[in-house]
Amino acid sequence: MRMRIAVAASLLCAATIPFLMTGCATARDSRAVAQLSSATLESWREGPARTAIVSFVARTTDPSSPDFVPEAERIAVFDNDGTLWAEQPMYVQLAFIVDRVKALRAQHPEWETTEPFASLLKGDAKAVAAQGEHALGALVAATHGGMTDEEFRATVRAWLDTARHPKTGLRYDQMVYRPMLEMLSYLRANGYRTFIVSGGGVDFVRAFAAEVYGIPTDQVVGSTAKYRSEMRDGVPVVVKTGEIDFVDDGKGKPIGIASRVGMRPRMAFGNSDGDFEMLAWTTAGDGARLGVLIHHTDAAREWAYDRASHIGKLVRGLDEAPARGWVVVDMARDWAAVYPSTD
Amino acid sequence: MRMRIAVAASLLCAATIPFLMTGCATARDSRAVAQLSSATLESWREGPARTAIVSFVARTTDPSSPDFVPEAERIAVFDNDGTLWAEQPMYVQLAFIVDRVKALRAQHPEWETTEPFASLLKGDAKAVAAQGEHALGALVAATHGGMTDEEFRATVRAWLDTARHPKTGLRYDQMVYRPMLEMLSYLRANGYRTFIVSGGGVDFVRAFAAEVYGIPTDQVVGSTAKYRSEMRDGVPVVVKTGEIDFVDDGKGKPIGIASRVGMRPRMAFGNSDGDFEMLAWTTAGDGARLGVLIHHTDAAREWAYDRASHIGKLVRGLDEAPARGWVVVDMARDWAAVYPSTD
Repeated sequence: MRMRIAVAASLLCAATIPFLMTGCATARDSRAVAQLSSATLESWREGPARTAIVSFVARTTDPSSPDFVPEAERIAVFDNDGTLWAEQPMYVQLAFIVDRVKALRAQHPEWETTEPFASLLKGDAKAVAAQGEHALGALVAATHGGMTDEEFRATVRAWLDTARHPKTGLRYDQMVYRPMLEMLSYLRANGYRTFIVSGGGVDFVRAFAAEVYGIPTDQVVGSTAKYRSEMRDGVPVVVKTGEIDFVDDGKGKPIGIASRVGMRPRMAFGNSDGDFEMLAWTTAGDGARLGVLIHHTDAAREWAYDRASHIGKLVRGLDEAPARGWVVVDMARDWAAVYPSTD
Repeated sequence: MRMRIAVAASLLCAATIPFLMTGCATARDSRAVAQLSSATLESWREGPARTAIVSFVARTTDPSSPDFVPEAERIAVFDNDGTLWAEQPMYVQLAFIVDRVKALRAQHPEWETTEPFASLLKGDAKAVAAQGEHALGALVAATHGGMTDEEFRATVRAWLDTARHPKTGLRYDQMVYRPMLEMLSYLRANGYRTFIVSGGGVDFVRAFAAEVYGIPTDQVVGSTAKYRSEMRDGVPVVVKTGEIDFVDDGKGKPIGIASRVGMRPRMAFGNSDGDFEMLAWTTAGDGARLGVLIHHTDAAREWAYDRASHIGKLVRGLDEAPARGWVVVDMARDWAAVYPSTD
């Protein structure tokens, strides 16, 4: 996925924003735990994608194979939005931002007359989008800044407990992809360590990654705001400033991996051209490497989008995958199920 | 330890530099693998330090204890220089920098007349130190920049294979602390995940952390230079620029942990006031937390230093440890052995 500010700002467009202004359902049930205990790929239909992945894992874990990879080097990285969970009709983190601005409205009467808040609160998404990067930066700072990471994540979790997707009515964390949960478990059972490398904010993803994906906070790489150390009532705390510091998208993804993971992965899973550099860098390494693109082809069960989509745009990846030997997963054909509990 | 540029520059002083100008021994033997397979604390003598640590681990891993900590939250962080390996008479990374400048001398004739290289090559450490932060930045850029992280780490490993400590004649990676290797193994055997949080450069530490400490690259947090993505011969690479981006020392250590590990640790081990904020932030968290300071009291087997030392200066930690409940390890009294193979 891509979370560049310019792109993200464009998502606050008239096509997607109106229903976000209608508010969210109240809390109804406890958090769905979407992790699967089995390490089988039962939701993956037989076909070239499944075969290529299983063959790769078999070769890289067989000590007698020339493609064998020592366990210490078995690193698999996953984009989040559009690769591990749904990203349509807008990134989940943007839905969170919109809801947070509304939730904080009473404490910020000045927002009624200050941009970009005033336009957002009036539901005038076009006006918000027209203000560009600066507007999104202000929205991020207002909804992500001034808290410790622990406070911020508690806010995200509370929101996930109440928010519902406008089309499916599901909790957002019920819209993770069952085949990808199986893939995470399958790879871990084969000695791979699984990392998320998301264009989204790192603390947003960390709020649910352990519970939903079984991935600990330190195995989540994402875009970051600056932090500062300060004393509160004589106690040291680390506070998020909300000021964007590093955008883990596009060219940023190899940098995020090099700096945080510290090793070039053996496998990379993505779904958009924001993941292109991550797959290209991964598969340019020596020895056995595999790039996988999730192609959203399933308008009936999820969404069908690629070249023309604002969100999850996929052009170069589709064009170059064959020559680069990347696996393209056809969601409609290759996945027997999409979400864990609904089909 | 502390790797602030200003402090580090002061280390290039007349007291420590002369012998560094004499060059290093040639390669003699293969890399010592210092990891221990046992998870016992056999090099820790009975005493209050050992008792406090063992008691803490017992309480936090006993499900019936009010201090129980779920395995997912069992995070222990370790400073490197002076906590896991020796840091006297100068940080190992600085010895590396000096040797690299000498090794690259022939390729850079301009260094003979360009500061700070000219002074360093003449052995005039005072003149180098007098040039301050800018000088050290230039030395770091010249010796760390322009390479991929993989290339840089290979350079570090090759250097470790040949360099010898001026006093002991040991390889630097033979001057890790045997009791701390035991501590790492002991904590991991009790479900703790062990992270290095070093003021040193992250790629320098990553070059040997897996082999020497059993700690994978992604569990090493350190100071970072900026990276850039670029194409080389049509292949994407991530290159270290050598431009310092984040200093993981002092107030930076809680920030490094929050941003990279993403969770406040349960245990923190350090040895200098550069670790103070890390221990303070760790032990200010809810529930069971433990801070441990290694106090260098052993002039016979290692070094004795604290309040008056340029390297590993420890004042505030000693003053406040009792009131804060931090464990102070008296190296001479508490450790039955210091290095893995020499005593």
